[in-house]
Amino acid sequence: VGPPIYQKDRIYTHAPPAGVSTGLGYLGNGSGAVMPVEAMSMPGKGGLQLTGKLGEVIRESAQIGLSWVKAHAYELGITQTPEEQFLTDRDIHVHMPEGSIGKEGPSAGTAILSAFVSLFTKTPINPDIAMTGEISLVGQVLPVGGLKEKILAAHRAGIKTILAPGANRADIEENVPESVKTGIKFVYVEDVKEVLHEVFKGQAVTERWKDTLSL
Amino acid sequence: VGPPIYQKDRIYTHAPPAGVSTGLGYLGNGSGAVMPVEAMSMPGKGGLQLTGKLGEVIRESAQIGLSWVKAHAYELGITQTPEEQFLTDRDIHVHMPEGSIGKEGPSAGTAILSAFVSLFTKTPINPDIAMTGEISLVGQVLPVGGLKEKILAAHRAGIKTILAPGANRADIEENVPESVKTGIKFVYVEDVKEVLHEVFKGQAVTERWKDTLSL
Amino acid sequence: VGPPIYQKDRIYTHAPPAGVSTGLGYLGNGSGAVMPVEAMSMPGKGGLQLTGKLGEVIRESAQIGLSWVKAHAYELGITQTPEEQFLTDRDIHVHMPEGSIGKEGPSAGTAILSAFVSLFTKTPINPDIAMTGEISLVGQVLPVGGLKEKILAAHRAGIKTILAPGANRADIEENVPESVKTGIKFVYVEDVKEVLHEVFKGQAVTERWKDTLSL
Repeated sequence: VGPPIYQKDRIYTHAPPAGVSTGLGYLGNGSGAVMPVEAMSMPGKGGLQLTGKLGEVIRESAQIGLSWVKAHAYELGITQTPEEQFLTDRDIHVHMPEGSIGKEGPSAGTAILSAFVSLFTKTPINPDIAMTGEISLVGQVLPVGGLKEKILAAHRAGIKTILAPGANRADIEENVPESVKTGIKFVYVEDVKEVLHEVFKGQAVTERWKDTLSL
Repeated sequence: VGPPIYQKDRIYTHAPPAGVSTGLGYLGNGSGAVMPVEAMSMPGKGGLQLTGKLGEVIRESAQIGLSWVKAHAYELGITQTPEEQFLTDRDIHVHMPEGSIGKEGPSAGTAILSAFVSLFTKTPINPDIAMTGEISLVGQVLPVGGLKEKILAAHRAGIKTILAPGANRADIEENVPESVKTGIKFVYVEDVKEVLHEVFKGQAVTERWKDTLSL
Repeated sequence: VGPPIYQKDRIYTHAPPAGVSTGLGYLGNGSGAVMPVEAMSMPGKGGLQLTGKLGEVIRESAQIGLSWVKAHAYELGITQTPEEQFLTDRDIHVHMPEGSIGKEGPSAGTAILSAFVSLFTKTPINPDIAMTGEISLVGQVLPVGGLKEKILAAHRAGIKTILAPGANRADIEENVPESVKTGIKFVYVEDVKEVLHEVFKGQAVTERWKDTLSL
């Protein structure tokens, strides 16, 4: 595993396991923050538990992300047939550290959905990738706010790739200073399928998705 | 699929799948909005999940719409016999983006019911059609308010057809300025069967409905 | 079906189907209202769903009405033997439009019970008949308040017959102005069996009830 590495604004001392993605949040006080999403499953009865001082909208985000994954479990290669029941004998827990910081808003959508897909396909996500974007139930990625603050936080934390909503592209290109964007590759997305193909690029799962989860 | 298309006040960059309809809402601050309804199903046990910061009345609307569809599943061609159980092995999730905007009121009734029928008959709805109208449990379409604001929002979004309650006809014809209504075809409806025949006009399902869902 | 007919204070543009009765409500602001009750059944597991922004007392009314009908299903001719299970493979949904108006109080009892009997015997109720009255579990009809306001609302809506509790008779005859009662036939009832014989007078079901549901 190697010695712990303390990176500024990164909470993990070692690369996190499958089920962890990196979101970008905008705190009420005007600053942005790198905001990990942790999803874990355990033997259970199909429940969904949410922690991290989460407001109502962000909790609904998690329900939306989980429903999308359940509805596409077969295409994602998680179940073997389209009718197969999924997660009936598991409980899912989603947590967003740090526990004492309140979090609200819909912009963690793409991060939450990615954490679920990472968990269920057992494929860890590169911790140098971050993302922000609201998701609709049918998978449209919707624009978000606080982009300058979010990108600044990602920059400070050494993030190398940011997935952002296509509808925010003009705003990012015109209004966010170059100094803040330096060293970061921006990938603009419209649909959650694009998010997944980018987040898991090069991994085994995307091979399967070429047939079932095409854009 | 084609390149993404950014239309003012439209949230989808590509034509949405079956299960999506377009409602028209009136926000508390005096403006109207195009308000999509997204319905999706997944393997489950017959549950109904509702997200989108929905108030009690709009949540009841969804229950009314689902009950009407369940009671008419055979006439709609969704089940094969009148006694056939429906949705016992599926969960339904209804979401109304955007996630952070609160929504309340009964006027999304026709849009919600149409989204359900679209989902269960696997027939996408033309995104240039919008609708507003409360539904009663036996399918009567009831009048709504905020029509001028709703039609203005539809006009800005390039909507081409609006289904509205017959009881609102005089109000729309007399009190909504021509400049707002230009380019929009108005279809006045009394019953949800008329809504469905209009929304799915020209589609395969309406052929079946000629015998079973006549007006 | 014919062209839609817009009658003042009537919500249905065509005669409603079986399962619909007309109650009379008293709104908190001092006015009365014609208040339809819609009951519908669908394939299910024996559940009862109630919508229409209903308070606790009116929800209990619905439970009382359904229990009375279940206990008398054989006498009503709905089941074939006294022990036959009833509604185990159906869900019932009761709705009271309009969805955004809150409703409370016990006076919709006779209307709710009539809607259930109409639904299960597949016998529509004449929409020119309205009723008000609390019901007890063993079928006693109990007096209600707000009679002047309720009768005024019925009068404005062109109602031709009102079933009211016998215990309210003196109040109606002495305190409600003739101008409000003009054109309306009043039928005073003590027991829900009298309600049913009057509401379904002349229909096939009352023939059967002569033997089984006598007063």
